[in-house]
Amino acid sequence: MTYCCALRLEQGLVLISDTRTNAGVDHISVFRKLHTFGTEGERFIALQTAGNLATTQAVLGHLQNSLTLHQEPNLYTVNTMFEVAELVGKTLRRVLEDITSNTQEQMNYSCSILVGGQIKGEEMQLYNVYPQGNFICATTDTPYFQIGESKYGKPILDRALHYTMPLDDALRCSLISFDSTLRSNVSVGLPLDALVYYKDSFVIPEGKRISEEDPYFTQISKQWSETLRRGLQELPKPTADYGL
Amino acid sequence: MTYCCALRLEQGLVLISDTRTNAGVDHISVFRKLHTFGTEGERFIALQTAGNLATTQAVLGHLQNSLTLHQEPNLYTVNTMFEVAELVGKTLRRVLEDITSNTQEQMNYSCSILVGGQIKGEEMQLYNVYPQGNFICATTDTPYFQIGESKYGKPILDRALHYTMPLDDALRCSLISFDSTLRSNVSVGLPLDALVYYKDSFVIPEGKRISEEDPYFTQISKQWSETLRRGLQELPKPTADYGL
Repeated sequence: MTYCCALRLEQGLVLISDTRTNAGVDHISVFRKLHTFGTEGERFIALQTAGNLATTQAVLGHLQNSLTLHQEPNLYTVNTMFEVAELVGKTLRRVLEDITSNTQEQMNYSCSILVGGQIKGEEMQLYNVYPQGNFICATTDTPYFQIGESKYGKPILDRALHYTMPLDDALRCSLISFDSTLRSNVSVGLPLDALVYYKDSFVIPEGKRISEEDPYFTQISKQWSETLRRGLQELPKPTADYGL
Repeated sequence: MTYCCALRLEQGLVLISDTRTNAGVDHISVFRKLHTFGTEGERFIALQTAGNLATTQAVLGHLQNSLTLHQEPNLYTVNTMFEVAELVGKTLRRVLEDITSNTQEQMNYSCSILVGGQIKGEEMQLYNVYPQGNFICATTDTPYFQIGESKYGKPILDRALHYTMPLDDALRCSLISFDSTLRSNVSVGLPLDALVYYKDSFVIPEGKRISEEDPYFTQISKQWSETLRRGLQELPKPTADYGL
């Protein structure tokens, strides 16, 4: 499986993906699922992928190939983030149609893709592209999307995250969401790829690979366990009607 | 959907179930999913159910009917908790076979059942009865089982719970696990049924129904949000290599 999480907040984007892929429990590999494109000063585009690896690699391959061969439309010539999401969705549909025209069967090879970014003169956007190639857009009400093994890490986002949260707080919140998932589900694994994009900066962020030895991630993971244990202790004792 | 959680700890059992059942989003009802049987001073048996409501009601109906008509084997005459789990599993298989002999098709009507309790002279036990009627037993290494929408509430259990935890701490931990699930998934809903059984007491606990107005549950839910928000704030700031 996979876990990818993307936040579109007032100040920018926070994107994190794990890297574990598996075909059965005895066939586990590391593949990057967070990919960036762009031109400094003009556009920044990020894709996060979950699902069938051959499909996600084919989608990325076609998008990259169009850039290499200057075929239009491509990620560097479309005008808006909406058109980027459309291009990704259409590319996904084309990849699936290359395998089989049976839409039922296509779902065996399906994937989900988060598309975030900003093009000069336009709003920063975040899209969730579904396996069928259609998509939805993040808003101030719902400022985040998750794909893959999303349930373990959802409660902390639902409780703590909000649109106006500063990016460093949001990054910590997302890292805790990942830590919770990593501990409860062996199909999501380190290293992680994390990236912060500042709105209107039009800088392509280098991103950060978080390995098992990452001192910061190790520290907050340990401290969070302590926070939860202490927090539970500090909750008032159950009232008598609970039968204790 | 449903969320049921059962802990078998050194000092006793902690069992919590929600009550929401739904057949589509416009057909939502309240049905109890935590059921107790027993004889004061001799045996205590609890069943928690998730899955097809007609199936879980049929299983409970057959178990109760055997008690009413003094048909053997029944929950009050079997000798061990292992035999209780076997009886529940066999009853489930019988209910499914009454619908169809096609085992593939049976899975459309399937359910999961947690079976906990203690019979005088025997160890307290907790079993997870699968849709196929076979089952596994909780241990000191893995002292809890969940059925239904289990993922949202798993991280807090994985981080904080251990076999030697006092029952009041374990109850708070489970209630937080439920609170996280309730906030993130609308198919799990209040009221909850909670029950604590003290090992070797052979008392049938009355249990507690937790409604939306329950002052204790409301208080810990609010305090927990505060704990998480403060905990996130107290985490050290991301190091420079995170790109902030």
